[in-house]
Amino acid sequence: MSTVVFKLSGASFQIVDAKESSSGASCSLLQNAYRRYFEYIFPSARKQGHVKKKTPASAVSELQVWITSADTECDGFPNVTSDESYQLSVDSPVSVLKASTVWGALRGLETFSQLVYEGEYGAKSINRTEISDFPRFAHRGVLLDTSRHFLPIKVILANLEAMAWNKFNVFHWHIVDDPSFPYLSRTFPQLSQQGAFHPYTHVYTPSDVKMIIEFARLRGIRVVPEFDTPGHTQSWGKGQKDLLTPCYSGASPSGSFGPVNPILNTTYEFMSMFFKEVSTVFPDAYIHLGGDEVDFNCWKSNPDIQKFMEQQGFGTDYSKLESLYIQRILDIVSSTNKHYLIWQEVFDNGVKLKQDTVVNVWIGNKVEEELQKVTEAGFTTILSAPWYLDYISYGQDWQKYYLAEPLGFKGTDAQKKLVVGGEACLWGEYVDATNLTPRLWPRASAVAERLWSDKDVRDLNDAYSRLAQHRCRMVQRGIPAEPLFSGYCAYEYKGV
Amino acid sequence: MSTVVFKLSGASFQIVDAKESSSGASCSLLQNAYRRYFEYIFPSARKQGHVKKKTPASAVSELQVWITSADTECDGFPNVTSDESYQLSVDSPVSVLKASTVWGALRGLETFSQLVYEGEYGAKSINRTEISDFPRFAHRGVLLDTSRHFLPIKVILANLEAMAWNKFNVFHWHIVDDPSFPYLSRTFPQLSQQGAFHPYTHVYTPSDVKMIIEFARLRGIRVVPEFDTPGHTQSWGKGQKDLLTPCYSGASPSGSFGPVNPILNTTYEFMSMFFKEVSTVFPDAYIHLGGDEVDFNCWKSNPDIQKFMEQQGFGTDYSKLESLYIQRILDIVSSTNKHYLIWQEVFDNGVKLKQDTVVNVWIGNKVEEELQKVTEAGFTTILSAPWYLDYISYGQDWQKYYLAEPLGFKGTDAQKKLVVGGEACLWGEYVDATNLTPRLWPRASAVAERLWSDKDVRDLNDAYSRLAQHRCRMVQRGIPAEPLFSGYCAYEYKGV
Repeated sequence: MSTVVFKLSGASFQIVDAKESSSGASCSLLQNAYRRYFEYIFPSARKQGHVKKKTPASAVSELQVWITSADTECDGFPNVTSDESYQLSVDSPVSVLKASTVWGALRGLETFSQLVYEGEYGAKSINRTEISDFPRFAHRGVLLDTSRHFLPIKVILANLEAMAWNKFNVFHWHIVDDPSFPYLSRTFPQLSQQGAFHPYTHVYTPSDVKMIIEFARLRGIRVVPEFDTPGHTQSWGKGQKDLLTPCYSGASPSGSFGPVNPILNTTYEFMSMFFKEVSTVFPDAYIHLGGDEVDFNCWKSNPDIQKFMEQQGFGTDYSKLESLYIQRILDIVSSTNKHYLIWQEVFDNGVKLKQDTVVNVWIGNKVEEELQKVTEAGFTTILSAPWYLDYISYGQDWQKYYLAEPLGFKGTDAQKKLVVGGEACLWGEYVDATNLTPRLWPRASAVAERLWSDKDVRDLNDAYSRLAQHRCRMVQRGIPAEPLFSGYCAYEYKGV
Repeated sequence: MSTVVFKLSGASFQIVDAKESSSGASCSLLQNAYRRYFEYIFPSARKQGHVKKKTPASAVSELQVWITSADTECDGFPNVTSDESYQLSVDSPVSVLKASTVWGALRGLETFSQLVYEGEYGAKSINRTEISDFPRFAHRGVLLDTSRHFLPIKVILANLEAMAWNKFNVFHWHIVDDPSFPYLSRTFPQLSQQGAFHPYTHVYTPSDVKMIIEFARLRGIRVVPEFDTPGHTQSWGKGQKDLLTPCYSGASPSGSFGPVNPILNTTYEFMSMFFKEVSTVFPDAYIHLGGDEVDFNCWKSNPDIQKFMEQQGFGTDYSKLESLYIQRILDIVSSTNKHYLIWQEVFDNGVKLKQDTVVNVWIGNKVEEELQKVTEAGFTTILSAPWYLDYISYGQDWQKYYLAEPLGFKGTDAQKKLVVGGEACLWGEYVDATNLTPRLWPRASAVAERLWSDKDVRDLNDAYSRLAQHRCRMVQRGIPAEPLFSGYCAYEYKGV
């Protein structure tokens, strides 16, 4: 970045396709992005017809976006191998943003918009700059939980928007869980009719899901849904008879239910149909299948399960029963041509996993040991453990998130390459539409930088000043990102 | 409360002055309250001309508000001796709310609105009920801090509104502090011109202050401003030359400044003029004068102060210097006919206090010992220590706030009577417009009940269900009160 400063004028500045670009006016992903970023740069520009004034010397009149690959991927979905790198050359009168695909262009547009600042007399200014940028990790996710509290579409969209500002590229949608089942399944509508907090105000219809996926796609964000089984499924049981294990109190059913019942054929028939639907509704190559925190007590109490255990020769090792169940679910999902992610217990319990399984490490102690083991076994992994943003505490906890190093464990280069990224997780016990957004931002921004930037970018003072500025930027763009510490933004949040 | 249920219809229900009431149409405080509470009860009622239909049997067609004192206090300000008691009789076709003054009527209107619920088919319903209610403590406050972050007027008003829903009656406005001085003083405008984060976007003009006070008054809320000295005054120094003590590094000034300079006559001349203004701007009988956390290091470094200490025979006991300063400030404020509150250190340091001083206990350890001492010395006290809501933690911390008992210390009945109330404090280091409201509510609601209800009302399960319902009520009325735990509201927050 040089000290040479150019101005930008809302009346003449344009973001356009470069002549050489393989993309054009028909790529609405980019056209939408141009509009979005123009408005971020000139929030109050009058939407008058574009007056092509003579550009004054030392101004940037155009940002040309140049997609270099023959396949721009404009109408596709981002995936874990997407090329998000870009080269940005800020110069006068023309700046150029070069990227192999639209995914890199999106990241570069964000960077360009962040380079613009208000100089003297509020004039939009930008320094001559050359950037060659790419992410350190391919999977940079945010987990939101729509089961413990329902999140209105508007809240999800706003946070996808903020994710793009932070170059996150995966929305891990923990869509259902014990408390509620808001996913409206076409095949099994009774799941949400009975299992949602409310059968139509607190559900995601197929249209809602489609809209969320498209909104995310336009921002280079994958939507990876999680349907966690066999535990965390209380809400499933309300609409699907015989799916859950009846728990026994002595010789008779207690009336309460445990994890999915792994010994019935009907369970697997249901899951086959259900995941067949899910695999068509969600275009991403991956589905998260959960598998965490399975409580064996209910299984242990049930005489049919006991008998099954005996028949299988499992003794009293209920993790074998869990493995049997998971194994079958993995096979079902494989048959829909999807890959899957699972929480670390599935690996820890020794379930046989296909080599393309992604293991999601979340348990807070012995993280490095776990990463070592998982990668030693040759599995790709996603790290969530250091970034449970639902655990709030007094003070600047973003620093802790910022300093967490995903590759800090002992292992070979090959092992480290298997860590493809991480996720900031905001579990839903204590958040809903009222407080989710300020609790997520800018704390998740610290995670975003850790996952994008070089590992040596870890100076807390430098990060503080950039992060404080970035949170004010988010506030100005309309997101109530909370403050890091005492101070102010030039443009404060206008809501309540 | 009986099981007999009455209905209320938005087309015919009215809140009116009782014929016997000493108040009438000219009492706009009550007329405004009638409108407000009508709208809370019927949020979607069409604002058509009031159709006086025949009231069906078993409906409540009117709530008559009956002020019994000759002096309704309609145009006055609430104070610590205001009578907030009320009697509410919910019956058909007429319900009656009886109160000595408008202050009790406001509390009763809130209660009435909370008794209304949605019955079958969404019909507004209320049970036959007889209530005789009054607060346990006279001072039930919320502290907001507008120095560490500026809070837009809109945010302050929204939270005053929510305070009224929780029967809080004091807004302790910690208006200035080290980081910024947003109070626009007519006498010393340079204080905010130099000391605010921004000289006009981040200040409270006299009109703003007036509006806040009137908005609060209409809800029975006192506005007690705090101008904390001699510490916590860095921002004052920017606009008022020679007010702060120049710190020394060896033999020469270091360029930094400490607490208010207590040895100069100009200091007291300034303070006299300043507090004279403050005493006219804020109508409440009390001003909070702070006095906490005075750091002696700067005073110690300054040769002029050293000399003064010697002259006074203070030795090296800088608390004597602090006392001298505070003593003079108290005299200055007394001369404006105001009473004052001070943070506990002023009492702890042995400053001679007039018997009408209110000691604000805030230090988190040895709270009961402190309450014992302060009341033994015969001082009225306000308890803040258990309710520092800025200290967030994971989980349901409202329970801790709820169970804190202000009269749990050892002392005579006379001593306990001196504890006139408490305050929920939300200091501003980590909150601003983006996150203040959900962080305050419903956590402060737990404090509100502790300060209003009988000391034996402390069942956590019962409180949980009422509080969860109350937080949904606040959400429906438009305030983003955060959730207590997994679950949902029938009407979720519509913002982001």
